[in-house]
Amino acid sequence: MYQDHLNRSASSPVSTAPLAAPAPLRVGLLGLGTVGGGTLAVLLRNAELIAARAGRCIEVRRVAVRNLPRAAATLARLAGESASQQVQLTDDPHALVSSPDVDVVVEVMGGTTLARTLVLQAIANGKHVVTANKALLAEHGSEIFAAAQARGVVVAYEGAVAVSIPIIKALREGLTANRVEWVAGIINGTSNFILSAMRERGLSFDAALAEAQALGYAEADPAFDVQGTDAAHKLTLLAANAFGVPPQFADVQVQGITSLDAADVAFAERWGYRVKLLGIAKRLGDALELRVHPTLLPADHLLAQVHGSMNAVMVKSDAAGITLYYGAGAGAEPTGSAVIADLVDLARSASLPAHQRVSALGFQSNAVQAMPVLEADAVQSAFYVRLDLSRPDVTVPRVLQTLALAGVQVQRMEVLPHPADDAQSCLVLLTQPLALRDLRPALQVVEAWPEVLGFASVLRMERLV
Amino acid sequence: MYQDHLNRSASSPVSTAPLAAPAPLRVGLLGLGTVGGGTLAVLLRNAELIAARAGRCIEVRRVAVRNLPRAAATLARLAGESASQQVQLTDDPHALVSSPDVDVVVEVMGGTTLARTLVLQAIANGKHVVTANKALLAEHGSEIFAAAQARGVVVAYEGAVAVSIPIIKALREGLTANRVEWVAGIINGTSNFILSAMRERGLSFDAALAEAQALGYAEADPAFDVQGTDAAHKLTLLAANAFGVPPQFADVQVQGITSLDAADVAFAERWGYRVKLLGIAKRLGDALELRVHPTLLPADHLLAQVHGSMNAVMVKSDAAGITLYYGAGAGAEPTGSAVIADLVDLARSASLPAHQRVSALGFQSNAVQAMPVLEADAVQSAFYVRLDLSRPDVTVPRVLQTLALAGVQVQRMEVLPHPADDAQSCLVLLTQPLALRDLRPALQVVEAWPEVLGFASVLRMERLV
Repeated sequence: MYQDHLNRSASSPVSTAPLAAPAPLRVGLLGLGTVGGGTLAVLLRNAELIAARAGRCIEVRRVAVRNLPRAAATLARLAGESASQQVQLTDDPHALVSSPDVDVVVEVMGGTTLARTLVLQAIANGKHVVTANKALLAEHGSEIFAAAQARGVVVAYEGAVAVSIPIIKALREGLTANRVEWVAGIINGTSNFILSAMRERGLSFDAALAEAQALGYAEADPAFDVQGTDAAHKLTLLAANAFGVPPQFADVQVQGITSLDAADVAFAERWGYRVKLLGIAKRLGDALELRVHPTLLPADHLLAQVHGSMNAVMVKSDAAGITLYYGAGAGAEPTGSAVIADLVDLARSASLPAHQRVSALGFQSNAVQAMPVLEADAVQSAFYVRLDLSRPDVTVPRVLQTLALAGVQVQRMEVLPHPADDAQSCLVLLTQPLALRDLRPALQVVEAWPEVLGFASVLRMERLV
Repeated sequence: MYQDHLNRSASSPVSTAPLAAPAPLRVGLLGLGTVGGGTLAVLLRNAELIAARAGRCIEVRRVAVRNLPRAAATLARLAGESASQQVQLTDDPHALVSSPDVDVVVEVMGGTTLARTLVLQAIANGKHVVTANKALLAEHGSEIFAAAQARGVVVAYEGAVAVSIPIIKALREGLTANRVEWVAGIINGTSNFILSAMRERGLSFDAALAEAQALGYAEADPAFDVQGTDAAHKLTLLAANAFGVPPQFADVQVQGITSLDAADVAFAERWGYRVKLLGIAKRLGDALELRVHPTLLPADHLLAQVHGSMNAVMVKSDAAGITLYYGAGAGAEPTGSAVIADLVDLARSASLPAHQRVSALGFQSNAVQAMPVLEADAVQSAFYVRLDLSRPDVTVPRVLQTLALAGVQVQRMEVLPHPADDAQSCLVLLTQPLALRDLRPALQVVEAWPEVLGFASVLRMERLV
């Protein structure tokens, strides 16, 4: 049977004395929408458990919102009438970030203008900040982290990347001993939902997007998600923590899934590949690749098994080898889970000297240094190419000869009927790895021929092993 | 383009002053075998990177081994002749754990007798302890954690569970806001390698074990691995961190893979299931299930995609939902990666008051309380059952009637030729979920019939969603 030394020690002075002492960590929430509500709901429901883990209570003291009556109703629903009275509601966020009874400002309002102002004000007032705002940190992270360092406060953001997955913690604490070679992830749930629907049921992009919107997996304006911007924001933060670089969002090479053709998804499937929107950050000597694009992956690859709106991040590093982290990439309580993890870390580390805390980007700031990032044209990979042809008998050999003369090596080729047009054939091929700039000229030559209809479909293929 | 505020601050006094100050964290290694060597290799190779993350250097000052000449050769190989002189080699581990120039004792010698003595001595001497010794902590954890708490030192053990995967950190920090419902993992690489070989190539257990031994994936004496003991040790530590219970190793219900029949692996595959050795810890009201056994999983389940010697742990919790963590479950450097992660945490938290550090079991000690654990007979699940029959025409209806009369509901059934004996048929069936004690009497009845050959093969099936 179990031994209960730990249990018995509960009554000893050693364990109970320090537990009675610590003051609660006092939180001010900016925003009580989906994420703010989810965070508050989990904080209240699991308050006892969280205190038992953290050794301190975490209390929301103030909440700033635009719509006070709606927020009051949300508060009453989550906390009950009486408890909700202990939370001060305000519509003045500037007052909240300077409140003396707030230790940590949790920014879950979104946007990059007012949010940036308030976060910088909070920092200037000596408040720690927890945020799930990937756009804010990808675009203004260097400014915000520098301000936090100068003021000796923490800016934590586990909820900003693949929300329920503790990937920031894994990268900078769990894998802290490792030189990271690459990070590759499915980090936009909306796109992955759409790609799953396209593959599983042969839907077009438009039909799959409409379904995602109807089911609440895509916003009314889905541009940020399906154009790859959201994934690029998250990749920026992953790369920073993996490689010790500042947020280099403007350098990310981004291609979304909006022009992805269902025919290519089906042909890839036929060949044993699945198309996923990946964010890939890779170190190549003294340069980085930072890229977001639809990618063919072998169907038995673990990332190819990530379905629907789920997220996953794979990391290749020198000591640990390949590790993978999987979970929900969106949602009120999954994001709340990450925000509270940051709060509990703060409950412990707030009293440490700043240099002993985990740094904002995982590396001590004087070790953070930007690296040059390869242009898309220079990034090497195998390529899947589809050409629609009116006369395959004549054109296929000419295409292959043109590619060969241009130094493009083809490792696999198949001529297939066009799924939507009996009068056309599709030439599908897979190249050996090469830079896009070495493939493009040959494709431009053949695209000019009258027997080649429209432009080539070109997708990268990665093995990620 | 990127902003380089962080970069510029490298020359400011704010960032450089604290970096010059911190003293190195001084480590004493107990053991320089596979894990000790891997830890030292990574510490030396990535010393600069680790210091850039941790804000302090981590230095191995002393190493205690049995065989001094062999250790000296290992040291010289890893560190070079000159650097290796700075490490003091000794064959007196008792001296090492009381050395004044050691802050942390890293126990990577293995075993539970001398290792226990030395760890307790180190704690008594006020040293923090990092260990990858799952047997030691599963069997003596309560004693060791209580001693550490009384002395105000840390006992960290990320390397003890699914080595390269930061799962202990994920459970008690990443998911700290969550009430965990269950944890299920492939946490023994040897068994998973054998099961993969049995499924993919139809090998018998004995043939697959011999291959695992030839390739170095199994020890000469594989009992700990294939009988489930090693997985039970790890499950004990996972459950402690998930549920706030002390290590309850003696309560784990353990069944290994030694008697697993290749025919059942093949029939499971035919029905769309894969057999995996899972460790499962589940909360059911005020009781726990703690069990290790071969388990049928739907073939498209993420845990069913974990091949060869890799490990993975899935967690279901109330706020984050399902998350999964995957990586190498053995190896010198993967274990070193985990040991160093613990050292870096210590480099930061050693100066914190004990109650502000992450607790040994993830919960403050006065919140740790043992829970009753269900016996295997009481644990409910669906069951896969195979009966070998000489006269299926007569016997199948009688078996089904007997099961029905006993209240066992069958959800799927098939009569198949016996793969090894033309004179026999196999009745394969899958039950609705029920307790083993409600299935067993009916099976005992039919096993007594002369037309039923030998005993039933019985395996649990889990959906884990």
